[in-house]
Amino acid sequence: MGEFDLIDRFFKRPVSRNPLGIGDDCALLAPAPGMQLAVSSDMLVEGRHFLSTVDPFKLGHKALAVNLSDLAACGAKPLAFTLALSMQLAEEAWLEPFSRGLLALADEHLCELVGGDTTRGPLNICIAVFGEVPQGQALLRSGAKAGDEIYVSGTLGEARLALEAFRGTLTLAAEAFEAARARMEQPTPRVALGQALRGVATAAIDVSDGLLGDLAHILRRSGVGARIDTAVASGLMTPACSGAIDTERRLEYVLAGGDDYELVFTAPASAREAVQAASRQANTPVTRIGGIETETGLRLVDAQGLSINRRYGSFDHFA
Amino acid sequence: MGEFDLIDRFFKRPVSRNPLGIGDDCALLAPAPGMQLAVSSDMLVEGRHFLSTVDPFKLGHKALAVNLSDLAACGAKPLAFTLALSMQLAEEAWLEPFSRGLLALADEHLCELVGGDTTRGPLNICIAVFGEVPQGQALLRSGAKAGDEIYVSGTLGEARLALEAFRGTLTLAAEAFEAARARMEQPTPRVALGQALRGVATAAIDVSDGLLGDLAHILRRSGVGARIDTAVASGLMTPACSGAIDTERRLEYVLAGGDDYELVFTAPASAREAVQAASRQANTPVTRIGGIETETGLRLVDAQGLSINRRYGSFDHFA
Repeated sequence: MGEFDLIDRFFKRPVSRNPLGIGDDCALLAPAPGMQLAVSSDMLVEGRHFLSTVDPFKLGHKALAVNLSDLAACGAKPLAFTLALSMQLAEEAWLEPFSRGLLALADEHLCELVGGDTTRGPLNICIAVFGEVPQGQALLRSGAKAGDEIYVSGTLGEARLALEAFRGTLTLAAEAFEAARARMEQPTPRVALGQALRGVATAAIDVSDGLLGDLAHILRRSGVGARIDTAVASGLMTPACSGAIDTERRLEYVLAGGDDYELVFTAPASAREAVQAASRQANTPVTRIGGIETETGLRLVDAQGLSINRRYGSFDHFA
Repeated sequence: MGEFDLIDRFFKRPVSRNPLGIGDDCALLAPAPGMQLAVSSDMLVEGRHFLSTVDPFKLGHKALAVNLSDLAACGAKPLAFTLALSMQLAEEAWLEPFSRGLLALADEHLCELVGGDTTRGPLNICIAVFGEVPQGQALLRSGAKAGDEIYVSGTLGEARLALEAFRGTLTLAAEAFEAARARMEQPTPRVALGQALRGVATAAIDVSDGLLGDLAHILRRSGVGARIDTAVASGLMTPACSGAIDTERRLEYVLAGGDDYELVFTAPASAREAVQAASRQANTPVTRIGGIETETGLRLVDAQGLSINRRYGSFDHFA
């Protein structure tokens, strides 16, 4: 199977948004009047972002999901993506389920594959994703203000729990393992919530490196600090998983597990109703976990409001 | 050096086009009214697209050049790009010259780095590039018509000559080797020519896999055939290189060498003057090498117009 055959066979489909279809030198996109184009690119490397044994269908899902999560964090509506794929062999047994998983999630979000590249090399999946957002309405990292409240969507820490189980540092019962593994292998980008939060949230980011580490980007760009209620946060792991580990480890995975692809965002206290309405509209639960403060830095407090002195790292590929 | 330090240190610069600068979840772009956004993505893998010994400055240049070449083939004006970079170590001695080479070419084309990703893994450089083109004016592969003439820019075959010298299948004198090597390591994307050909060329593509192979994409998408004058084509290699090999090999490298990043395009005979004007405006030589015919397929003829029966392959990563 040659390079162009495999594109035709697994990735070429009727297109509507790109007037050319796949196969010209460039794809052509035209955002609607008054819209800005939101652009992001994430690369997934075998052995770093996924295990070599992962189901290719789930890998196709995840490769696009982590990119859609960046659009969600900006409040952008997905439009299109490009796929650059390096692999050692062009094997149908891998390409067929990979493309199926990728395009199933793309269809769910009406996000069209408009171009890309295929080459031989160590397995590497690089997607660039394009969305649209009304001029000036993108959710940024820089808008948090003292007095804002901090929310996070969904649940946290399960992906890290699954990773530790794969690494063999802990053992999980079947139910907990399957629940954790599903979160690690098929994260749900919070695309609808991001769009519903436009005009409501003052700042947002998606949680990929760990809750505290990603929140720290908001704090730095906004020039503020934060207090996080660990008693609330520790309840954020899904019940099927939270019983499988002790309290301390649970808190660590929730606060600094990584690979969660939930949204952490800020909104003024006056917007509590609007936040709840956005949550209902997007059918995505959100939990208030703390507040933005003038003093810079990040403070963890327990149920009694007392400071907890413990540091949690954030994932860094080169640290 | 951590992931965010290295981004700050080597890749973050004052930005003008992206209102956010690098470092939010997405970059935001707004094409001017009446403009379409042209999007392309190319991935470069160590050992496939470049030798591990290549000067990182030149590699930075080439990684962006091959992407700009796709914009050129559409007649689009470069605006911005994202960079996803996987590497085994974050070494200053590599990152400093790589980023310098990359950003020097970016500056030359006013093409802004607006975002991306860095991760650990086998060396892989994935760029997505964005340009703008007036609505409906993009150069496509599908517009060639019987009677059109076929042109190619610049010279061809030197990159392949250099590759063969590196592979040891031939030996070159110093002057020929340096000339060939410069073409392989620092190709010149024909960005100005592509824009000058809007409204003049009926179809265009950039030559990355080899002249005949890439021309075949135009023929297939346009539903036509072509005749190529090999006596003219064989003169397309730069003099410093063409004397280094025999006639047969020279023709092979010109017609099917690959990695050239010249433009091959078609235009009606009535546009000869306009093609020359575009060539002068872009300060880029072009040569007429044949014509489009109704009969499908590709015919090679010699100086006497007689058919040459020889097949030339085109580069395919998985063939």
